[in-house]
Amino acid sequence: MNQHEPGTLGELGEFGLISKVTEGLPQNSQVLVGPGDDAAVVAVPDGSVVISTDVLIEGRHFRRDWSTPIDIGRRAAAASLSDIVAMGAQPTAVVVAFAGPADLPAAWAVACTAGLRAELDSLKVALVGGDVTSADAVMITVTAIGDLAGREPVLRSGARPGDLIAIAGRHGWAAAGLALLSRGFRSPKKLVDAHRFPLPPYEAGPLAARSGATAMIDVSDGLIADARHLAQASNAVLAIDSSLIAVPEELASAASAYNMDPREWMLTGGDDHALLATFPKQVKIPSIFAVIGEVQASGTQGAGVSVDGHIVKSRGGHEHFRS
Amino acid sequence: MNQHEPGTLGELGEFGLISKVTEGLPQNSQVLVGPGDDAAVVAVPDGSVVISTDVLIEGRHFRRDWSTPIDIGRRAAAASLSDIVAMGAQPTAVVVAFAGPADLPAAWAVACTAGLRAELDSLKVALVGGDVTSADAVMITVTAIGDLAGREPVLRSGARPGDLIAIAGRHGWAAAGLALLSRGFRSPKKLVDAHRFPLPPYEAGPLAARSGATAMIDVSDGLIADARHLAQASNAVLAIDSSLIAVPEELASAASAYNMDPREWMLTGGDDHALLATFPKQVKIPSIFAVIGEVQASGTQGAGVSVDGHIVKSRGGHEHFRS
Repeated sequence: MNQHEPGTLGELGEFGLISKVTEGLPQNSQVLVGPGDDAAVVAVPDGSVVISTDVLIEGRHFRRDWSTPIDIGRRAAAASLSDIVAMGAQPTAVVVAFAGPADLPAAWAVACTAGLRAELDSLKVALVGGDVTSADAVMITVTAIGDLAGREPVLRSGARPGDLIAIAGRHGWAAAGLALLSRGFRSPKKLVDAHRFPLPPYEAGPLAARSGATAMIDVSDGLIADARHLAQASNAVLAIDSSLIAVPEELASAASAYNMDPREWMLTGGDDHALLATFPKQVKIPSIFAVIGEVQASGTQGAGVSVDGHIVKSRGGHEHFRS
Repeated sequence: MNQHEPGTLGELGEFGLISKVTEGLPQNSQVLVGPGDDAAVVAVPDGSVVISTDVLIEGRHFRRDWSTPIDIGRRAAAASLSDIVAMGAQPTAVVVAFAGPADLPAAWAVACTAGLRAELDSLKVALVGGDVTSADAVMITVTAIGDLAGREPVLRSGARPGDLIAIAGRHGWAAAGLALLSRGFRSPKKLVDAHRFPLPPYEAGPLAARSGATAMIDVSDGLIADARHLAQASNAVLAIDSSLIAVPEELASAASAYNMDPREWMLTGGDDHALLATFPKQVKIPSIFAVIGEVQASGTQGAGVSVDGHIVKSRGGHEHFRS
């Protein structure tokens, strides 16, 4: 950083920070009024808007000594964008609320915004507004909106007995990376990176919707936990066949080195933002999805998730406030 | 609270809190998919959506010993809704990110949500989604969307020389209330209440837009500070005539009791969410607005705000990070 630039948020001030992070902001043709007014105006050709909000908090979702500000910005954007694509919609714009301590280096906030913008740019999503304030810990709330382009939203509640269950994107990678970091390791880089920021299969969301997916959910808490959310909303059993889950070489070797079970990561690890969807059997499932099971009627046991025929009772996912 | 109910957020858990605060959630006919899925879907008949986000943080924007959770919920909603109406739009829905410590009484979070919902209900705005997480301090981010019903948005940049400047709603009241609280007083109640939660003139926003307002801004930082934002966006001088600003009896008597200047509160106090707008002279200005000056060309002095003919150089408003 140029030594003449202010060193902290306190020196830069709220409006200084805003002007720094809004230089050359990513916009797109749907932005009718961009940042700088009381609110932004975004075109919604479909006549309905998809909206979701997600917050990342220092010490809960990330540590500044484990993740770079660029990683954290990417994660903050990914968390909200994943929710939009999980409805089958294309994200169009976000607004961001950012809070941080007055002694936070201004360069950190600028780099965090750069990470957020990089994630948005990859999908041509515009950053149209925000709010900046001071707080003891860094907090980033990203609210994303998206467009369904005339399609019906793909809800959690549409899975029907006989549908195939399929997953797109990595799962268990962030959990593996966290396990390594927690033990003091900084490699393998690919796994550690997976904890630092996800690589969500964004394109799989609208693709699944166009292909006739009956239900879909963003896997942020873990495969079993989010499959259970979908199962409950659909009043069905999601029967997962673990032999259909291919363990990637990277997870297998890391797990064996530390005497851990890679399937545990893949079934319960969160934060990768995979997409879990169900499809009628006659549908041609897009190749980005891997089939991992079949939807069954809930019957007497009630809605839930089974793995290899056994209903899973444990939570198998992360819940805030509880330890 | 029932003694069998969990006492803290930690005991209730994330999903317990979510289920508690989403019971009988305010919805409206524009909500196509409400809370409980990855994202919400809201109808936008106009084909464009107005969006704004605002964050309230404990210790910065409020103190739990000065404000009730109901007040804080109302304030959080008001901050975002005011930005939507300042574009001339009607708010339709909000999403909310809520963070709080694990030992926060669950009743506090529920009451905060009740306050938020009360503010939304008064405008028939739906609460369609959110995120809940743990943090050391309470943090509430409200993102609101709204509909222009076919009108053009009223920007900050549309003020023209000769336009009249008018303000709707209270201003200086929250600052007066804060001054009293800071000195250890708890009365007069009307002023102390004004710090605890605003009473924004929501209906004035769409009304001004329909009446032909050329520019508009939500007064959240203070009249002079926000008038300056509008002046700069419009490249004009907002010439305020302080003799046109009627000092309400409540402010006059509180100021005289503590040997303070009520006009200082009215010109620089924030957080009341008054609406400042400009109107062409031939327009019939809605009676909820009071004319307080006239827009002048910026000339050699540049864009800014003058009070009684003198350009105001001081910031005259609140900026985060700086003290």
